[in-house]
Amino acid sequence: MSDLWPYVTPGIPDALFEQLPGIPISKREVRLLLLGALRLRPSAVLWDVGAGTGTVAVEAGLLCPQGKIVAVERDEEVAALIKTNCDRFGVTNVDIIVGNAPECLDALPHQPDCVLIEGGQKGGEKLEHLLTEAWNQLVCPGRIVATASNFDMIHTISDTFATLAVQAIEVTQPAINRLETRGASQVLRAVNPIFVISGEKKL
Amino acid sequence: MSDLWPYVTPGIPDALFEQLPGIPISKREVRLLLLGALRLRPSAVLWDVGAGTGTVAVEAGLLCPQGKIVAVERDEEVAALIKTNCDRFGVTNVDIIVGNAPECLDALPHQPDCVLIEGGQKGGEKLEHLLTEAWNQLVCPGRIVATASNFDMIHTISDTFATLAVQAIEVTQPAINRLETRGASQVLRAVNPIFVISGEKKL
Amino acid sequence: MSDLWPYVTPGIPDALFEQLPGIPISKREVRLLLLGALRLRPSAVLWDVGAGTGTVAVEAGLLCPQGKIVAVERDEEVAALIKTNCDRFGVTNVDIIVGNAPECLDALPHQPDCVLIEGGQKGGEKLEHLLTEAWNQLVCPGRIVATASNFDMIHTISDTFATLAVQAIEVTQPAINRLETRGASQVLRAVNPIFVISGEKKL
Amino acid sequence: MSDLWPYVTPGIPDALFEQLPGIPISKREVRLLLLGALRLRPSAVLWDVGAGTGTVAVEAGLLCPQGKIVAVERDEEVAALIKTNCDRFGVTNVDIIVGNAPECLDALPHQPDCVLIEGGQKGGEKLEHLLTEAWNQLVCPGRIVATASNFDMIHTISDTFATLAVQAIEVTQPAINRLETRGASQVLRAVNPIFVISGEKKL
Repeated sequence: MSDLWPYVTPGIPDALFEQLPGIPISKREVRLLLLGALRLRPSAVLWDVGAGTGTVAVEAGLLCPQGKIVAVERDEEVAALIKTNCDRFGVTNVDIIVGNAPECLDALPHQPDCVLIEGGQKGGEKLEHLLTEAWNQLVCPGRIVATASNFDMIHTISDTFATLAVQAIEVTQPAINRLETRGASQVLRAVNPIFVISGEKKL
Repeated sequence: MSDLWPYVTPGIPDALFEQLPGIPISKREVRLLLLGALRLRPSAVLWDVGAGTGTVAVEAGLLCPQGKIVAVERDEEVAALIKTNCDRFGVTNVDIIVGNAPECLDALPHQPDCVLIEGGQKGGEKLEHLLTEAWNQLVCPGRIVATASNFDMIHTISDTFATLAVQAIEVTQPAINRLETRGASQVLRAVNPIFVISGEKKL
Repeated sequence: MSDLWPYVTPGIPDALFEQLPGIPISKREVRLLLLGALRLRPSAVLWDVGAGTGTVAVEAGLLCPQGKIVAVERDEEVAALIKTNCDRFGVTNVDIIVGNAPECLDALPHQPDCVLIEGGQKGGEKLEHLLTEAWNQLVCPGRIVATASNFDMIHTISDTFATLAVQAIEVTQPAINRLETRGASQVLRAVNPIFVISGEKKL
Repeated sequence: MSDLWPYVTPGIPDALFEQLPGIPISKREVRLLLLGALRLRPSAVLWDVGAGTGTVAVEAGLLCPQGKIVAVERDEEVAALIKTNCDRFGVTNVDIIVGNAPECLDALPHQPDCVLIEGGQKGGEKLEHLLTEAWNQLVCPGRIVATASNFDMIHTISDTFATLAVQAIEVTQPAINRLETRGASQVLRAVNPIFVISGEKKL
């Protein structure tokens, strides 16, 4: 339980996280759907691949004090940002790995029962390889969740999930509007829509 | 922890709840935003006014085993449905009160630190009175969350929140699309959008 | 110019059309985007394949009095519905063809400079074949517009458009909410989202 | 008929208009809904109050060659931008008036049968006064359309429309997603949602 977020419900406001320009952040409302799609157990082992600002890692770390989160980021500076955000919320069960996925996945500690593949804007062979490697590492039963922001990614994820025989696939597309304050007035703004595609490995 | 939902993350699929035709249900994706807006503590006391199918009450009951949820419903049959759903998930910390809000609020056990005003399709004096009574019962610090599905309700809630000096008001409008299976094919379907308006009582 | 719709702007309310249960109708707001994507000239020749209720055919017929619309429907009863709607609006430049696309396309009168492929819920080989045949018949310069309501269709359309070297491809996903009256109150309802994918044949 | 837009359908791409940083533009998809809500006749007289970049004025000018559009803008520089865009599309039936609405409405040429109140981010007395003045000038039968981007505006518009006994009120909220190209990849982006509120003056 964090002093900054002493709640059992996820949904930390974006503004409570340290942010860097250009580094992707899973917006609160989308993050709620990602965490809901992951279905974390108290002792979950989550791989968060493409962890960005680290918001999912922080929330999962708080929700699963007996669990373990492995946040994978290729960029050193972004990894440092994740560390900053974990420290800010007193989260100590996140391992931050600087490395390129899927190459680095083999060497990761803790075999996962949940995998989140976030971010990127490319479908194609590399994403397919990443999904396949992550799936192979996933224990059974286990869950895999991926996000897509364009047709290529949708295509790769749905094809790869079909090939891997991922079960109980669910797709949601949150299109969230927020009333934001701009100076003296308020404007309804849209959060950019992404697709959240999730499924299960089971016997 | 429920056998049916052994997870620390909210987001129980709608299909896991017993449902009755015509009785409103907070759809999973909207429910995630409602729970996120409530910011429940482990020992939260939540009033869920207009509890409908009881999905929020069940999720809050699971998330806050040391807490207490008071689900208020005017209709006996709907109250029985809430009971069925609590039993299904092994939730024992939900008090179900059959009564008309706001009249019945005075007699409710457990002063709340979170209030959710769900459902209804009418703004106006009655909703204003309900919000005001709920606010007066709310401890400080505490949170209030209300949903609106039309302009009258938006109007009443925003005006009443202004009069009550509700602080840190946030508004989101989730417009969620789900890929649903229809026979042999799939179709992207929209969940009807509602506004989620939340705020705080604080010193 | 129709007595029932004496306007130069498209956007006829859905309720002004005769409708049959289970027959798809392009809702007004989506129809506006479809017509906008078609970019009809005064003398346009439009093939409307899968014309359903005939709303696009009627609007295009009114907008292009010197043009010609060919509405293709496989079902006799639906073809009769299109006829009813054309009559209702005094539209006389719509040819209604009962037939299976793509087989029937070869024999259609009037080579098109605009093609709309509406409806269906299946991607795959048949849709690919339909898009290809329509494209082959399309004069140059000409426009093609297709709608997709699930991932299979998105996949087939985007792959086929790439193979055909369709140019200036645009994708929009209208997610429209309407305030609808239900008895004494009003509720914000979502129109189911579809993707509108359009492009050009040009030198 | 413009060389640049030789079509009978509205929906000119945003990129075809001259734009200035910070000056509001009605995005193509929203513009289609606005024009649809206005229901322009061939000889329409449209007041476009808060005309911004002039996109609606240009499209209405093209659609109604026998009609007259009065574009009202308070800012000289923005008025010049409207002029540039009219010239670009060869539109000659738009009168551009630099002035503050509602004060300047009394002196406008051409009593309108359609009024569009666009833009702004404030509800309250000033918007109420503007709507009332515009309504008073509107011939009967006639149509009024207003846009709202926040709760204050929704509130003012719906209250004022009720007071003025505007008939056949319709509300839509377009939430459009567009697939946009960013460098080598594509991302689904949301157009910020606004409410379009329209109604009629009739006997």
